[in-house]
Amino acid sequence: MSASGATAEPPPDGFVDLAGRLADAAGTMARHYYRSSLNVDAKADASPVTIADREAEAAMRAIIETEAPGHGIYGEEHGRTRLDAEWVWVLDPIDGTKAFVIGRPLFGTLIALLRNGVPVVGVIDCPALGERWVGAFGRATTFNGETVRTRACPKPENAWISTTTTDPFSADEAAGYARLRDSVRVTTYGGDCHSYALVASGTLDLVLDVGTQPYDYCALPPVIEGAGGRVSDWRGDPLGLDSDGTILAAGDPALHTSALKL
Amino acid sequence: MSASGATAEPPPDGFVDLAGRLADAAGTMARHYYRSSLNVDAKADASPVTIADREAEAAMRAIIETEAPGHGIYGEEHGRTRLDAEWVWVLDPIDGTKAFVIGRPLFGTLIALLRNGVPVVGVIDCPALGERWVGAFGRATTFNGETVRTRACPKPENAWISTTTTDPFSADEAAGYARLRDSVRVTTYGGDCHSYALVASGTLDLVLDVGTQPYDYCALPPVIEGAGGRVSDWRGDPLGLDSDGTILAAGDPALHTSALKL
Repeated sequence: MSASGATAEPPPDGFVDLAGRLADAAGTMARHYYRSSLNVDAKADASPVTIADREAEAAMRAIIETEAPGHGIYGEEHGRTRLDAEWVWVLDPIDGTKAFVIGRPLFGTLIALLRNGVPVVGVIDCPALGERWVGAFGRATTFNGETVRTRACPKPENAWISTTTTDPFSADEAAGYARLRDSVRVTTYGGDCHSYALVASGTLDLVLDVGTQPYDYCALPPVIEGAGGRVSDWRGDPLGLDSDGTILAAGDPALHTSALKL
Repeated sequence: MSASGATAEPPPDGFVDLAGRLADAAGTMARHYYRSSLNVDAKADASPVTIADREAEAAMRAIIETEAPGHGIYGEEHGRTRLDAEWVWVLDPIDGTKAFVIGRPLFGTLIALLRNGVPVVGVIDCPALGERWVGAFGRATTFNGETVRTRACPKPENAWISTTTTDPFSADEAAGYARLRDSVRVTTYGGDCHSYALVASGTLDLVLDVGTQPYDYCALPPVIEGAGGRVSDWRGDPLGLDSDGTILAAGDPALHTSALKL
């Protein structure tokens, strides 16, 4: 049932360290372009793919090709390579590109390492904030090097929840969301990957989204489940490269179960 | 028609400096409690008023009582004093309390100084980010001491817009918002006071909300209009203590006019 539970042994420490170096490289690129004049020239695409996005992914791919040449890569910007490899990196150089473009510092780099299709390492790195969460199967999740835990919140009526936007919800999804929203204590909006990280830190109870891609969600299970939470799609299935793009992440597994029913 | 246009002379520099010292005091309190264990104990109130909120306002009020004892004060937490004075401070120690509680760093302190009911000084200070915008009638708005300008964006179809949440919209307000959302290029959610500040910085074109109080909006006109933009309620009237709680802020006055029609 949990995505990371499907694998038997922890990933090598060297791969976790490599994930951190990828985040370092992407963050350097992102900070260089954040709030630069590039941003004022907003592109016609509603989800702007900036130069920063492309350069940050290129920097990460170059490191992987050098340090782990047999590994596969699934990137938002530069496509897919060796997806049949045992180890595959899934990269979103800048998650929250709208936030990046308007100068809101919640955007982040998402890095996942999948072993035989199962996410076993995840990094959520917010370079404008200097905040990084690292999760790996068999390890406790860390925030800037310190162990974090989700908080207990079994009942929806006590839950603080967040979603980035409800605009892409289908009619069915909107109805399900409305039932959940009317059941919980507090709802907030926006936040992108940063909100998922707050679940791991135990200050937010549940985050959900729809219409996401593998590079948006593959980093989440190792980070949130390594802190005691649970992540799946809206049907309760573990997240992998073939998931349907819905995400339901909860700090308390009991809350995850309750939310699925709604 | 702009709120600050109703007054004849710029406020004394000393009052602008005082506004900055108030923000310093509130920010120290906010940073002290942000992400402390206090936050994990989320209160029953859906808009949590934390100890930080009360202490930050108390610190600002003490400074005003010492340095400007004849001035009025309208605070979120500790009520109203001398509202018939020529100069009245309107204080929101922590705007975005939900963000504060979940550990999202976009919350901020809002400080306004009204002269005979008209906002003439405004500060938007985000202490977790180290970002401060200061506006005053007769001065150019600054971001961390550097002059900022809104960007040109006369047409809705090119606009990037934001609203904190659509949940409190009435049916009429939701219909108006839907017309606007369907007319613009990109919509984002969340952000509270930080989004309004981004209008002044020229990286976001329009922000709107409903259901706000004077301490939520009185700081906005000096900051945004001092950078070239326009702020009003949804009917186009200037913001003051008796406004209806709707806010429409645009970086380009032509966009403000177009959005009002929608």
